[in-house]
Amino acid sequence: METLSATNPAEGKPGLILAKLQPENMETPLSVINTWVVPNDLFYIRNHFPYPNIDLASWSLTIGGQVKQQITLNYAQLQKMPQVTKPITFECAGNKRSFLSPPASGEQYGIGAVGNAKWTGVSLAYLLDQAQVNEGVKELVFTGADSGQRPDMEGEFHYQRSLPFQKDILSECLLALTMNDQPLPYKHGAPVRLVVPGWYAMANVKWLTGITASSDLFKGPFQAVDYVYLEREDAYQNAVPVTEIKVNSVITWPSKGEVLKPGVYTIKGLAWSGKGKIDKVSVSTDDGTNWADATLTSPEHQQYTWTFWQYTWSVSSPGHYSIMAKAEDSAGNQQPRISPWNVKGYGNNMMHQVSVSIPGMPILH
Amino acid sequence: METLSATNPAEGKPGLILAKLQPENMETPLSVINTWVVPNDLFYIRNHFPYPNIDLASWSLTIGGQVKQQITLNYAQLQKMPQVTKPITFECAGNKRSFLSPPASGEQYGIGAVGNAKWTGVSLAYLLDQAQVNEGVKELVFTGADSGQRPDMEGEFHYQRSLPFQKDILSECLLALTMNDQPLPYKHGAPVRLVVPGWYAMANVKWLTGITASSDLFKGPFQAVDYVYLEREDAYQNAVPVTEIKVNSVITWPSKGEVLKPGVYTIKGLAWSGKGKIDKVSVSTDDGTNWADATLTSPEHQQYTWTFWQYTWSVSSPGHYSIMAKAEDSAGNQQPRISPWNVKGYGNNMMHQVSVSIPGMPILH
Repeated sequence: METLSATNPAEGKPGLILAKLQPENMETPLSVINTWVVPNDLFYIRNHFPYPNIDLASWSLTIGGQVKQQITLNYAQLQKMPQVTKPITFECAGNKRSFLSPPASGEQYGIGAVGNAKWTGVSLAYLLDQAQVNEGVKELVFTGADSGQRPDMEGEFHYQRSLPFQKDILSECLLALTMNDQPLPYKHGAPVRLVVPGWYAMANVKWLTGITASSDLFKGPFQAVDYVYLEREDAYQNAVPVTEIKVNSVITWPSKGEVLKPGVYTIKGLAWSGKGKIDKVSVSTDDGTNWADATLTSPEHQQYTWTFWQYTWSVSSPGHYSIMAKAEDSAGNQQPRISPWNVKGYGNNMMHQVSVSIPGMPILH
Repeated sequence: METLSATNPAEGKPGLILAKLQPENMETPLSVINTWVVPNDLFYIRNHFPYPNIDLASWSLTIGGQVKQQITLNYAQLQKMPQVTKPITFECAGNKRSFLSPPASGEQYGIGAVGNAKWTGVSLAYLLDQAQVNEGVKELVFTGADSGQRPDMEGEFHYQRSLPFQKDILSECLLALTMNDQPLPYKHGAPVRLVVPGWYAMANVKWLTGITASSDLFKGPFQAVDYVYLEREDAYQNAVPVTEIKVNSVITWPSKGEVLKPGVYTIKGLAWSGKGKIDKVSVSTDDGTNWADATLTSPEHQQYTWTFWQYTWSVSSPGHYSIMAKAEDSAGNQQPRISPWNVKGYGNNMMHQVSVSIPGMPILH
């Protein structure tokens, strides 16, 4: 009878929002995130395949292909190498897909396929120096242990992604062993996950087993079929790869449909960009007609990590209010009111809008 | 390091989908419900106020007002009375509100503010016989222990709802002490919850403390302001009370945006009505142009409880498919393609539609 004797019962605990169970895809209830990093158990999860089986005793990572010195490392060896910590915001390329009109195929994420965490691990550059990549290498191909079938072609595929062999990109990358000072959780890619700061998170290959230097351009399906901006289904010849995170923001309070009393409120949200720091967030409470600057309140306002913002809203008149936010980054990018539609629904950084109402005193008869 | 040594790790467990934490409102991830009753920990939660404090030792239920014999009962006394078990589908009047266009204020529920459970408790009629309701009584007012403020008027209110003093309604009602053969969970109204079969669930008052027979019509705000169909905000003189659950259905598989191979699939869903049994469910895979009958597969096909349905879909051609379902009840009611909009977004029983795609082999260049 303990359910009956409860006094002062706690309110509920939030959980991840289910998008799909197999493979598991979950988004974060952003409305309850009030810490700069998202707790590991509330960090969004995006999988392409069922979870792989990893036996840590036999697991290894091989750096090979067009290198002078192929290297194979076990987990203990990686742990002994110099470790670097970086706060990095991950965003699924399909975040906000559900706001697209007409609908685009794929997981129908709302605003919660995004999260900030502290990642600690070995610098990719440190390993590449040891392997000594050959002249003429164009890309590195990263292979995850996860594998399975695809709806659009025959065969079994590992999740594989490539990065151009460019110093400005690779020098930022980590092979992460921990997340928010805890061992990297299994569901987030343990033992080792690639972290590519500033890129949409399809680049952050989980359960990493191989890094292959190649003088060719990689054409695997997660590179050439998925994760491209496609205007029409038959227009692969004009496909543009999905790379850096576009400037984006969300309103975390109030939520859509909220019914409020007249009063003074703090509108709150988050903003981020893969292409620079967040310089400015503006808020409108009249559906985009007038805009005012929000205050950026993040404890660490820097590149690759999100920023908290807030705006004080004083509202006295009953009515309906359309609240919008738009962010601007240090590279001069601004969020659009509506993002260009694309077949696969990637990179939607349209302004987030929530409608709230202040009811008048009802006049009954 | 247990996260690393996991082999054959289990896929995730679904949780409730957060709509709001305070007061707590959660909906059920219907896509993972494959049992006729929803497990108690996945049953949707709808609150108007913070959780009340209930001390079971001092808790009592009073049946009073216009009665010959006022009765006050403690929990043990209710437990000793004859118990009745009924499977009843609950649906929040705001279920599917998020599909309305333009948006209506209130919790933005998707399709999961609905659930079926077995409820066991004391027949309301049994208690009313003991209390001997006076001639001229028009309504019974049910009071919950939960209370708080409202955005639209001053003062503190308990959650209170009334039912007309009509035998056909009251004879069906239960005061539930258990849910799915377990003690009624605290969050679902323990120690005792009113259950009104066939009505939207605002009628199912939780944490019940009082039943008051009245010769007046009750005008409390959860009766006269909320839970009315309102065409315009100033049209309370034409407001129609929300009562019985309209015939409704959902597609639980596939989900919106699903990408599938050509093949043979089982489209699955649920259907229910407060106004009769479900007689028929039809499915369209071409956006409503052609319809075919689904098979009703519920283990107990009866009034007041939902029915499983399924439909075998063979699809061979790549393309986009708009899948729709519509249910029809034994009273002759059918789901509309679009429900009439109303200010507060109640009773949306429009057909559920999901778009899926079958990709062709991508032609790369």
